[in-house]
Amino acid sequence: MTDVAIVGASGYTGLELIKIVHTHPKFNLTYVANSEGDTTVQELHPSLQNVVDMEVQKADPKEIAKVSQLCFLALPHKTAMGFAKELLALGVKVVDLSADYRLELETYEKHYCPHEDKQNLPNAVYGLPEFYKNDIKKANLVANPGCYPTAALLALLPFVQSIQEDSNIFIDAKSGVSGAGKKLVETTQFVTVNDNIFAYNPMKHRHGPEINEKIQLLENKQFNISFVPQLIPVTRGMMVNVYATLNQEVNVKELLKSHYKNSPFVRIKNKPVDIKSVSGTNFCDIFVEQNGNALFINATIDNLLRGASSQAVVNANLMCGYEEGLGINTLAYVP
Amino acid sequence: MTDVAIVGASGYTGLELIKIVHTHPKFNLTYVANSEGDTTVQELHPSLQNVVDMEVQKADPKEIAKVSQLCFLALPHKTAMGFAKELLALGVKVVDLSADYRLELETYEKHYCPHEDKQNLPNAVYGLPEFYKNDIKKANLVANPGCYPTAALLALLPFVQSIQEDSNIFIDAKSGVSGAGKKLVETTQFVTVNDNIFAYNPMKHRHGPEINEKIQLLENKQFNISFVPQLIPVTRGMMVNVYATLNQEVNVKELLKSHYKNSPFVRIKNKPVDIKSVSGTNFCDIFVEQNGNALFINATIDNLLRGASSQAVVNANLMCGYEEGLGINTLAYVP
Amino acid sequence: MTDVAIVGASGYTGLELIKIVHTHPKFNLTYVANSEGDTTVQELHPSLQNVVDMEVQKADPKEIAKVSQLCFLALPHKTAMGFAKELLALGVKVVDLSADYRLELETYEKHYCPHEDKQNLPNAVYGLPEFYKNDIKKANLVANPGCYPTAALLALLPFVQSIQEDSNIFIDAKSGVSGAGKKLVETTQFVTVNDNIFAYNPMKHRHGPEINEKIQLLENKQFNISFVPQLIPVTRGMMVNVYATLNQEVNVKELLKSHYKNSPFVRIKNKPVDIKSVSGTNFCDIFVEQNGNALFINATIDNLLRGASSQAVVNANLMCGYEEGLGINTLAYVP
Amino acid sequence: MTDVAIVGASGYTGLELIKIVHTHPKFNLTYVANSEGDTTVQELHPSLQNVVDMEVQKADPKEIAKVSQLCFLALPHKTAMGFAKELLALGVKVVDLSADYRLELETYEKHYCPHEDKQNLPNAVYGLPEFYKNDIKKANLVANPGCYPTAALLALLPFVQSIQEDSNIFIDAKSGVSGAGKKLVETTQFVTVNDNIFAYNPMKHRHGPEINEKIQLLENKQFNISFVPQLIPVTRGMMVNVYATLNQEVNVKELLKSHYKNSPFVRIKNKPVDIKSVSGTNFCDIFVEQNGNALFINATIDNLLRGASSQAVVNANLMCGYEEGLGINTLAYVP
Repeated sequence: MTDVAIVGASGYTGLELIKIVHTHPKFNLTYVANSEGDTTVQELHPSLQNVVDMEVQKADPKEIAKVSQLCFLALPHKTAMGFAKELLALGVKVVDLSADYRLELETYEKHYCPHEDKQNLPNAVYGLPEFYKNDIKKANLVANPGCYPTAALLALLPFVQSIQEDSNIFIDAKSGVSGAGKKLVETTQFVTVNDNIFAYNPMKHRHGPEINEKIQLLENKQFNISFVPQLIPVTRGMMVNVYATLNQEVNVKELLKSHYKNSPFVRIKNKPVDIKSVSGTNFCDIFVEQNGNALFINATIDNLLRGASSQAVVNANLMCGYEEGLGINTLAYVP
Repeated sequence: MTDVAIVGASGYTGLELIKIVHTHPKFNLTYVANSEGDTTVQELHPSLQNVVDMEVQKADPKEIAKVSQLCFLALPHKTAMGFAKELLALGVKVVDLSADYRLELETYEKHYCPHEDKQNLPNAVYGLPEFYKNDIKKANLVANPGCYPTAALLALLPFVQSIQEDSNIFIDAKSGVSGAGKKLVETTQFVTVNDNIFAYNPMKHRHGPEINEKIQLLENKQFNISFVPQLIPVTRGMMVNVYATLNQEVNVKELLKSHYKNSPFVRIKNKPVDIKSVSGTNFCDIFVEQNGNALFINATIDNLLRGASSQAVVNANLMCGYEEGLGINTLAYVP
Repeated sequence: MTDVAIVGASGYTGLELIKIVHTHPKFNLTYVANSEGDTTVQELHPSLQNVVDMEVQKADPKEIAKVSQLCFLALPHKTAMGFAKELLALGVKVVDLSADYRLELETYEKHYCPHEDKQNLPNAVYGLPEFYKNDIKKANLVANPGCYPTAALLALLPFVQSIQEDSNIFIDAKSGVSGAGKKLVETTQFVTVNDNIFAYNPMKHRHGPEINEKIQLLENKQFNISFVPQLIPVTRGMMVNVYATLNQEVNVKELLKSHYKNSPFVRIKNKPVDIKSVSGTNFCDIFVEQNGNALFINATIDNLLRGASSQAVVNANLMCGYEEGLGINTLAYVP
Repeated sequence: MTDVAIVGASGYTGLELIKIVHTHPKFNLTYVANSEGDTTVQELHPSLQNVVDMEVQKADPKEIAKVSQLCFLALPHKTAMGFAKELLALGVKVVDLSADYRLELETYEKHYCPHEDKQNLPNAVYGLPEFYKNDIKKANLVANPGCYPTAALLALLPFVQSIQEDSNIFIDAKSGVSGAGKKLVETTQFVTVNDNIFAYNPMKHRHGPEINEKIQLLENKQFNISFVPQLIPVTRGMMVNVYATLNQEVNVKELLKSHYKNSPFVRIKNKPVDIKSVSGTNFCDIFVEQNGNALFINATIDNLLRGASSQAVVNANLMCGYEEGLGINTLAYVP
């Protein structure tokens, strides 16, 4: 058994972490915190009444180190690195769900803010298990990928070597509203979203550079990637459509299958994917089709699970020597 | 371990049964059937790809008896009693999710059709565990309650002795669309339901008599109950509001709490209930308020789980000597 | 032609007023204001680009009086009465969409705040045209009813003399989210409302006393009315179900028909009503059913139109001597 | 005044046609038909109770010719050309909302079926007013464009000369469910669509060739266009995202503005477009952005109006010598 802590319990990803850890056969939840403390898990999340009964502390790294070997950080960027730094110094393994350790220093500081933990940043492992499993197993600090990059990279990486170097790659992505978090803004109001769809920060969203950087690091290729995120009237789930131009004749369906033949949480589909078949699970479903040299890759994930909390627990499993799928739900909420 | 069969695998409740039994620690799924057979669980329910891999048979009681000790019937009424009769004769315990064994003979034949298994009908136990637990433990045939009656009875029964005898009881109920099943009809089309709400069969729905009969059997009281079911633009979940007139001064909140103090799957709430806190679970959440002698009881359940499949598995647990909550999900899908 | 002003242009009801007045054959929109001014109608409501091009002023009664004969106030309560008082003194007719002039002094001060325009309050006419048409025609100040009371009173008033005096009346009401206005609160977030339904302030909402008072004033009857408002995942539209106990044998369908035989904006339906058939219109659709002495009345309106802005324009039509339906949309948004 | 007929009154586009013609100042609705007849407009569309009261005939061209100068055909393809042929022979102008006269003979027969009115096909004018206005004015037969091609062509045509000839163009399109019509199929069930999104016939949908052909005819350019239609949980409205690669430096925002400076029903937006700002109107809203030589065009329409019925009435206006915007709604349903 491993004793674990969750910091950032108030948000959607915090709730999902609590739910997964609560039923996990090897993780023992010993500490839950948010920024104010002085409350309980049930007051934050009334749906947990009669199920999980714990006090919520004001987050304190020293207290965490006393009772946990691993800590999940579900905090805003910038806040997260302050905690991670201290926790690592105290010997606590960290899975960070923020952007703070996802990017190379230069990319991070260009798109976010000055980095305040340059010491640990080079040792952080990008927590996409399909591509970094061995590094994750040895890591003390894992940077859990963003939801859009998780789906986009799982869709795109198998095809990178088959795409024309000088061509444009377009990523048309649609996210459920929970991806925007709990902050009260007009764009997440029911009346704004219901019966609607709209793009936000098209061609300019910060997840674009994250996708770009990983493709370069993993495949040594550079593309002009255009990323268009959109909000759809759906609570959870995300669909990412990738459009690109092939540089060669290739059986795209076979290429995809062979790439993920040993990946338990990627499912290759014969028909276009949908959100409901993955909502509630850690699966990424992928479908691919071509039209001449035009390539269409169609991927779905649960933005709060595979795009955040269940992927974080898979990473924690690997960091603690457990089987990667331990305690991870595979049954979608369908219908 | 108990070997179990599921007949009626194509519908929503069939899918939920498969999901619960698949992860249940003591039930071993040995047989899955629908009316045609010759398919697989994954073809019927693509979300189960890579998770549950079983052939789906054309339902045959003799085959079921060879491989199972208990069978769930998720079939239309009338079809169900044909199977139940044969299975019981072959020594297989049955949890029937149809209406066939829920009612006294006379009530059944008035609202449904002639009954074709009058031999077993008197021995069927009504599967509402909060009120029939001991009988269920000894039963070979359990009639799983309808979704509306489950919520309405759990809301109403604690108060029956405190309600004016000659007064009207009104039940205003709202169901998610999955409650209508998979049949293609105009009322369950997206365009019909989205941004809409409407009643159907108000004051005349067949779940009205089921509620009435159980109140009389359990509490020996008879009321003029008016039942108004409505469809709301929600996939799963159900809210039942009961309006009645009290016959005495009574602390309704205390009465409710004391009534369910030993019921793990009923949660008493201090605020009005909502659907999302129970969707995905077997909980019935109940809130109560009064205004003079006017009584308002406000209850929610997941119509496919507490209103069908998870309640069926709770019944099966009791019939097989297991703890009632074994393998039953308590974590809501929230957000 | 009548020159009119709209004060409170930022909200949903302000937008609906602008849209109706813009296409109205006899109203000429001369002045639009909100609390800050210094913007345009298109900046507040981008959907009006290329359609309505007007500056939005900081509201000033003297300026209004210079350019308008009638003013719509779509303001919060308390703010509204300050403007109404000044406008009336300057000879401008007022249709007030707030609660400020809807109630008798005592009822108002009990449920809202001290009243600051006791001089005009007794002269305000309650703007429910089916019951106060002649008074509205002569009024300088009309208090536009709330959305819940509009639907509840239209449903209930025809039956008041047929309901048992000492019995409870229950009003189970469901509103689309736009009824809660544009204020950013957790209960109107998409994630909170989608796939959900919940009651708020059950038995205690301030629209309860408004319904009670009008029944007493119009029909000289007093009941214990219990009002339970609920939010449903719908943008606009409202359904109100009234449950009561009859005091006599009466043909409820005929009673309803005869009551509204001269009311162009009330439609009696042979089937349960739905929201989509009235959304976009000023209609109130009503269906009635009985079960012994139990009475069920089922009514729908568009909460922003019949429950606010189009009813306000009907009132303005009557106050200005025009035909009541002039410029009022009768075509629902269906599908 | 022009007397007009509507054939195909049962579907969504038939309903929209009835609503527009009913309030149109110059069109007089003299005849309404569907395939069976023997019903009324209100029985088909209960929301029209007390508003439009007409009998619905079994469609008969000779009867139509007696009472109408122009006929709208809202029929399935193949059925439509049978009626069009007869009506034209009888001197009735036709606006056909089906696919039957949209394509060149060869393209049509490849993607649909053998053409049965080769005589009139060459004289049919493609009813996209922004590009064929003068031809429409002189036409007796107008082929109303499909909803996807309407939005895609309005988005793409201004840029065709600025796009690399050998590059791929990708069209990622999302449609509200009403676009699929009223036929009862599993993909339009509420439970299937709610909280979901999925592509159908990606890279293979029949609207792809329609887009391709018009670009070639109007701009003499040929591209490999990949078209991916998707269903979103929205009743009406459609968003089309076009992704392409520019062949030159060009100010895309200025290019778009200048292209549509005289088009009253195209609005150029400074922010990404949304569906709700156009639902209920004939507008096409367009936003454009670039990233290096990557081009993103973002367009929305109401699929039932600009994508069908209101565009049909605009065409009819032009064919009859009226101003193109006569009787066309410009006020969106927002909120």
